[in-house]
Amino acid sequence: MTAADALPQVLERVDRDLQSSLDRLFALLRIQSVSTDPAYAPQCVKAAEHVAADLKSLGFSVSVRPTAGHPVVVGKSSKERANGKAPRVLFYGHYDVQPVDPLDLWRSPPFEPRIETLDDGRKAIVARGACDDKGQAMTFVEACRAFKAVTGELPLDITMMIEGEEECGSKNLFDFVRSNAAELKRDLALVCDTGMWDGETPSITTSLRGLVYEEVRLTCADRDLHSGLFGGAARNPIHVLADILSALHRPDGSVAVPGFYDGVHELPADIKSDLAGLNLTPEKFLGQVGLKIPAGEQGRMLIEQISTRPTAEVNGIIGGYTGEGAKTVIPGKAMAKVSFRLVGAQDPDKIRAAFREFVRARVPADCQVEFGNFTSAPAFEVAFDSPALGKARAALGQEWGKKAVTVGGGGSIPIVGDFKTVLGMDTLMVGFALDDDRVHSPNEKYDLKCFHKGIRSWARILAALAD
Amino acid sequence: MTAADALPQVLERVDRDLQSSLDRLFALLRIQSVSTDPAYAPQCVKAAEHVAADLKSLGFSVSVRPTAGHPVVVGKSSKERANGKAPRVLFYGHYDVQPVDPLDLWRSPPFEPRIETLDDGRKAIVARGACDDKGQAMTFVEACRAFKAVTGELPLDITMMIEGEEECGSKNLFDFVRSNAAELKRDLALVCDTGMWDGETPSITTSLRGLVYEEVRLTCADRDLHSGLFGGAARNPIHVLADILSALHRPDGSVAVPGFYDGVHELPADIKSDLAGLNLTPEKFLGQVGLKIPAGEQGRMLIEQISTRPTAEVNGIIGGYTGEGAKTVIPGKAMAKVSFRLVGAQDPDKIRAAFREFVRARVPADCQVEFGNFTSAPAFEVAFDSPALGKARAALGQEWGKKAVTVGGGGSIPIVGDFKTVLGMDTLMVGFALDDDRVHSPNEKYDLKCFHKGIRSWARILAALAD
Repeated sequence: MTAADALPQVLERVDRDLQSSLDRLFALLRIQSVSTDPAYAPQCVKAAEHVAADLKSLGFSVSVRPTAGHPVVVGKSSKERANGKAPRVLFYGHYDVQPVDPLDLWRSPPFEPRIETLDDGRKAIVARGACDDKGQAMTFVEACRAFKAVTGELPLDITMMIEGEEECGSKNLFDFVRSNAAELKRDLALVCDTGMWDGETPSITTSLRGLVYEEVRLTCADRDLHSGLFGGAARNPIHVLADILSALHRPDGSVAVPGFYDGVHELPADIKSDLAGLNLTPEKFLGQVGLKIPAGEQGRMLIEQISTRPTAEVNGIIGGYTGEGAKTVIPGKAMAKVSFRLVGAQDPDKIRAAFREFVRARVPADCQVEFGNFTSAPAFEVAFDSPALGKARAALGQEWGKKAVTVGGGGSIPIVGDFKTVLGMDTLMVGFALDDDRVHSPNEKYDLKCFHKGIRSWARILAALAD
Repeated sequence: MTAADALPQVLERVDRDLQSSLDRLFALLRIQSVSTDPAYAPQCVKAAEHVAADLKSLGFSVSVRPTAGHPVVVGKSSKERANGKAPRVLFYGHYDVQPVDPLDLWRSPPFEPRIETLDDGRKAIVARGACDDKGQAMTFVEACRAFKAVTGELPLDITMMIEGEEECGSKNLFDFVRSNAAELKRDLALVCDTGMWDGETPSITTSLRGLVYEEVRLTCADRDLHSGLFGGAARNPIHVLADILSALHRPDGSVAVPGFYDGVHELPADIKSDLAGLNLTPEKFLGQVGLKIPAGEQGRMLIEQISTRPTAEVNGIIGGYTGEGAKTVIPGKAMAKVSFRLVGAQDPDKIRAAFREFVRARVPADCQVEFGNFTSAPAFEVAFDSPALGKARAALGQEWGKKAVTVGGGGSIPIVGDFKTVLGMDTLMVGFALDDDRVHSPNEKYDLKCFHKGIRSWARILAALAD
């Protein structure tokens, strides 16, 4: 029986097994696997072992691999390729969760999962990790389980990699991927850690913006000066910095660093038209945070500004006296943190160098500038004509009764970049989070419908990929 | 015998009495009258009583007046005006001193005054307050003492006002002056709290810059945002602030706030020529703090930039993430402190209003700005044709064998503004501090020559004013 033939039974099994799927998710949610706080390290190990045991029960050959931090769970289940061409996939997820504070804002204990009925009648799973990423990762595991139950085997050659440090920067995963490239390199990576467009519209994240993060440290006088004695003659580093930061954008909102737009491509017309059809208005997007007027490049749709266009942002600035009241100081130093979101083929190294040149050209001859380099990651893009992308879009459309949109993620998921650059494979990012899931905040939730149809969606995607 | 007739004997007496003058100064320096630290309040009272007793011995009618803080010593000695026109003067000084920390940087205990021979052979009095302001104030008191010893009386109608809170903002003196205006209002105020041009060249401070100090608090989004999700669409308050602060100065270094230069006058040609003759080079003035290039208005001498021209300075700025490493935030808020040094007849209220208008015009419609008002003081100027100024210049020239320069003080001494606005009198600011006196720092000193010739200078000035 092919995976496609088995799909109706598999979906029926998913529906019938939903309560058990929930019980299994709840068991995982009860483990307090907060990765940033060393006090919870034993709970992280417990979560890893819990996941390992579960994967083992599905026939995966599982190992819990130590790292300098929390362990990585790796599970392998090989299978002959149907038609000799079905992709071998690597599924990536994480078992760790964010800290829970402020605890007093939770309406129920964060590690005692429960089903809550929202004001509008929706039912939701409430717990830390309900969505990010335990709930999301389990949609994939439960889809695998249903295949196993119906057909006795998994529909594809699947490698699982479930890590425990995503919420504190995946700092040991990069080395882990490099060290284990041979076994982790498959044909396609699957990630379930992103969101739906809205409660009715499935979405595939086809690009992630890259990031260059710089710190600019400016020194003028070798000490802080009294503005009465030196004001009017001494260079003020805040003025120099303000001039530089003000020059960073042109009046039309574009970034003025020379060569910045090298490698930025226009979207295909049909994709641009799809994006326009989503009708993301400033009221809807900016209104939620008290703003009204898009501040980015003029002549671009808001959805382009936040996903498929590069940006420059000052993330922090400090200089001089910032306490209460007045102090008449001309500071000797001032500092700013500046980051760039990258798209397409923009080269992080070239942009960093061009920015530094841009700054240096604006620093007076008797002042000094130093730079700090914090992050450098190129943008990630899935080709719009990728067969896996087409199959996933179709599968999602069938499940949700609505065309799946392809959107650019505004932020970065650095490990996805490494899947491309180190392991040489594309990543299909499909997720079922909603904007109101309060991810990283108190009362995190995951709609029961998203969990249920998320499992069904993965079942359909797996069947489509196997075909 | 007129004061002028008595002057040779008075100067001779000053020379002969120098050791006793030093002993009296040392007694005052031993009192630990640190005004900012409440632990030293009894020592401040002790210093006030010490000064009061000394003034009493010179024939002043003295009272130690309580305030909400440390007391003010007031001494009065009336005298018929010679020719019916000699000015009645108010001498202002302060008996309080700065804290001494860091104590371990002192080469001898700060309240055990001693004479030190410097590397270049100069002898100096070393102690906290040796210069600021105990040593300086005592030059005036000792000149009075010499007149009293030689002529049996003081040369002028003199009111003394010696306060104890100058080093913590004179916060109770403003009310004190208002409440006691009738007895404090004389024809001319004398202050000995400023410096010489250099070790050979006496100086009179004929103007002090005023000050307007503003805080600008900008709010864009109602919370901090993730730059991956919102970057490119959400307004960044640091960008808005950088644009505003960058626009504050024109490329030629002038201030771009409309109407800013209303009330700014050009110096008389002879005064400008005197200033040019001082040849204050960027190397000499900026070199001491590691700078080389004057940053102020182009086409102005450096000495004008720091004393007789108005300025705008950003004294502090903060927004977003300023800790170690990287955080990809678009902050909701950003803040800057901006101050203006004023000269001539610039109107602080008009400039504050114009600045706020300048800022508001640059704040996007969906963002908010609030202002904090911290200081407002107009500039203070002595008319260059004032008879007292002419007499003091001549007297100083005779003592030092070199023409006294008239300079503008870059900073503000707010009480001097009140002498003008509340008491309706000009202030003659003559002092003998040198640039290397380490005022407010460890190992504060006052050159013995400055103390000695300072007493002689005041004797000459008093004689000239009495004539």
